[in-house]
Amino acid sequence: MKFTIQRDHFITQLNDTLKAISPRTTLPVLTGIKLDAFDNKLVLTGSDSEVSIEITIPTEKGDNEILSVDTKGSIVLPGRFFVDIIKKLPADTVTIETNDNFQAKITSGQSEFNVSGIDSDQYPLLPQVSEQEAITLPIKVLKNIIKQTNFAVSTSETRPVLTGVNWMISDGILNCTATDSHRLALRKLQLENTNIETINVIIPGKALSELNKIIDDTEETIDIFFASNQVLFKVGNINFISRLLEGNYPDTSRLFPESYETALSINNGDFFHAIDRASLLAREGGNNVIKLSAVENAVELSSTSPEIGTVKEDVKTNKFEGEGIKISFNSKYMMDALRAIDNDDVQIEFFGTMRPFILKPEEDENLVQLILPIRTY
Amino acid sequence: MKFTIQRDHFITQLNDTLKAISPRTTLPVLTGIKLDAFDNKLVLTGSDSEVSIEITIPTEKGDNEILSVDTKGSIVLPGRFFVDIIKKLPADTVTIETNDNFQAKITSGQSEFNVSGIDSDQYPLLPQVSEQEAITLPIKVLKNIIKQTNFAVSTSETRPVLTGVNWMISDGILNCTATDSHRLALRKLQLENTNIETINVIIPGKALSELNKIIDDTEETIDIFFASNQVLFKVGNINFISRLLEGNYPDTSRLFPESYETALSINNGDFFHAIDRASLLAREGGNNVIKLSAVENAVELSSTSPEIGTVKEDVKTNKFEGEGIKISFNSKYMMDALRAIDNDDVQIEFFGTMRPFILKPEEDENLVQLILPIRTY
Repeated sequence: MKFTIQRDHFITQLNDTLKAISPRTTLPVLTGIKLDAFDNKLVLTGSDSEVSIEITIPTEKGDNEILSVDTKGSIVLPGRFFVDIIKKLPADTVTIETNDNFQAKITSGQSEFNVSGIDSDQYPLLPQVSEQEAITLPIKVLKNIIKQTNFAVSTSETRPVLTGVNWMISDGILNCTATDSHRLALRKLQLENTNIETINVIIPGKALSELNKIIDDTEETIDIFFASNQVLFKVGNINFISRLLEGNYPDTSRLFPESYETALSINNGDFFHAIDRASLLAREGGNNVIKLSAVENAVELSSTSPEIGTVKEDVKTNKFEGEGIKISFNSKYMMDALRAIDNDDVQIEFFGTMRPFILKPEEDENLVQLILPIRTY
Repeated sequence: MKFTIQRDHFITQLNDTLKAISPRTTLPVLTGIKLDAFDNKLVLTGSDSEVSIEITIPTEKGDNEILSVDTKGSIVLPGRFFVDIIKKLPADTVTIETNDNFQAKITSGQSEFNVSGIDSDQYPLLPQVSEQEAITLPIKVLKNIIKQTNFAVSTSETRPVLTGVNWMISDGILNCTATDSHRLALRKLQLENTNIETINVIIPGKALSELNKIIDDTEETIDIFFASNQVLFKVGNINFISRLLEGNYPDTSRLFPESYETALSINNGDFFHAIDRASLLAREGGNNVIKLSAVENAVELSSTSPEIGTVKEDVKTNKFEGEGIKISFNSKYMMDALRAIDNDDVQIEFFGTMRPFILKPEEDENLVQLILPIRTY
């Protein structure tokens, strides 16, 4: 294998490939990046066996030649170390040449590295996802869905299915649900032009965070292909493959109560900052609990920690309907939900002191954040 | 005590005060910030008992009133937590009022905190440094001295005096020396208008780093006062006091050999980047050792690690005098020294493969970096 490539372009693609690689892997070859040089392209592969990223670099981009392949071939090079070398090389281009002992000679300007690689035959084969059951989403919409649901997945492995986001398609509507059993995020989306009748899969939360870091707005849309145990996200020259979580996702529809006892509308920013301040004390006290007392016109937030002190915050409401309520909650869950809603005004509906309450953007039924209260009153 | 203060100005000064505070302290009261409100000023104090910072906030800055004191008094409030609260408050001003139980009420807009404080009588008295034996330096020069020497102090407590920088004044010249016994940095400075005949003190390296973070170019000069076991740096409204290290600093003058066997001049940036690259492999190999082979016109750098690979770098020399030489060194020490020299061209003088070599800016005798080689050849 021998090729010469524009270094800045190579670095960008290597950085994305690295995102799939974990330094803690049971299979040493997976700490490496696989390079496959073909006549007219170079393919980079990184994987931690849960998530795999495959990036294709063409020989030309626009009118510029960015890659020239002299000899086809492939090798696996030590991931992080290899990328660090490429980043620090002195010249605009870098040439990589391998020999029969899986040694790679890396040259750029007056700099020459010889790095020991691994036979690419030892690299596991990536799962093949048939490109049939597909939906296409604008990148912005996908990033928004991830932002609005992914934070709510469980970080505990007690119930592995809860570490993922449930993507369910039926009647042309995509429902994305995440819950750690203390709070729940639900985002709905009407799909256009899909041939899929029903899909019910659980995508690992970690995979969605990685995907979110890699995709940007240089492409307009992303294609998503579902297989029985894999999902493939395809955007531009990047293939992002994640395994799906096995198991049944719990039915969460019955968590949503019917009619509220109290409803109010409040400015998102004012409410968020007041909770942020109150949480300073709640956190210092060690329990993160904030008490909320809502009456006509205003919400009072408070937190008390005997040794440290007390805090009291007042926030005006825009609208108020129903009875006054006192309820306690975890400040982190509330701040996560408000961040996900990302709207000027938030509608909050309460169903009693002991029952979950919900938050949603005013005049938008496609996003619901549900939070279980903490019993203190 | 009761006062009202402009929040943004307060935050800046609190952040600087915090720099003296360590969360790991044997004296709990030192995790706090002491506030002393006088008729016409507020004094903030932070200390970890090694370093103390005292900042005076006047009532006016330019034509603006920034502080108004209603009632004099003092209190110690929990450092980090108190500063976090002030940072997040909603309004432009904040009012702080204490009661007889050392509770502080902090109000700003619709936000009200009540925080438990400590009687300021429990706060240790700061050392008093007589303002007699003084030198005055431009801030830029002091920052440069710190940058050029402080990195070379020892991080090991085996020989405590080596964790500090030796400041020695005699014949109107300031000599600043730092060494960890593997490398040494020496910076000389001709003093102007000083009444000091001789000074020989050891200032803790950590104190100098903290000082460097706090002082900026808003003031032109800094006054430095020496006492038997303390040093006071006074700049604008900040007093920065550090204890001095006890013990005798080793005599390092005999480390510098007389006449070199090899001397060369090389571009700092090119040389630095070549070492930076070679160190990638040297670091991965676990020993940080780089070999240098200098002949007429060029320096070859190389490093080898049997399992990982090899690297070779060539850098042109500008001048070359004397015999060719092969020598090995720790890449980190070399990069630190080149960074401190911060000059386009570096002069390197060798005295044989087994003897220390020195680096200095071309045509400047006031800065010398000395490095002990590693025996490999």
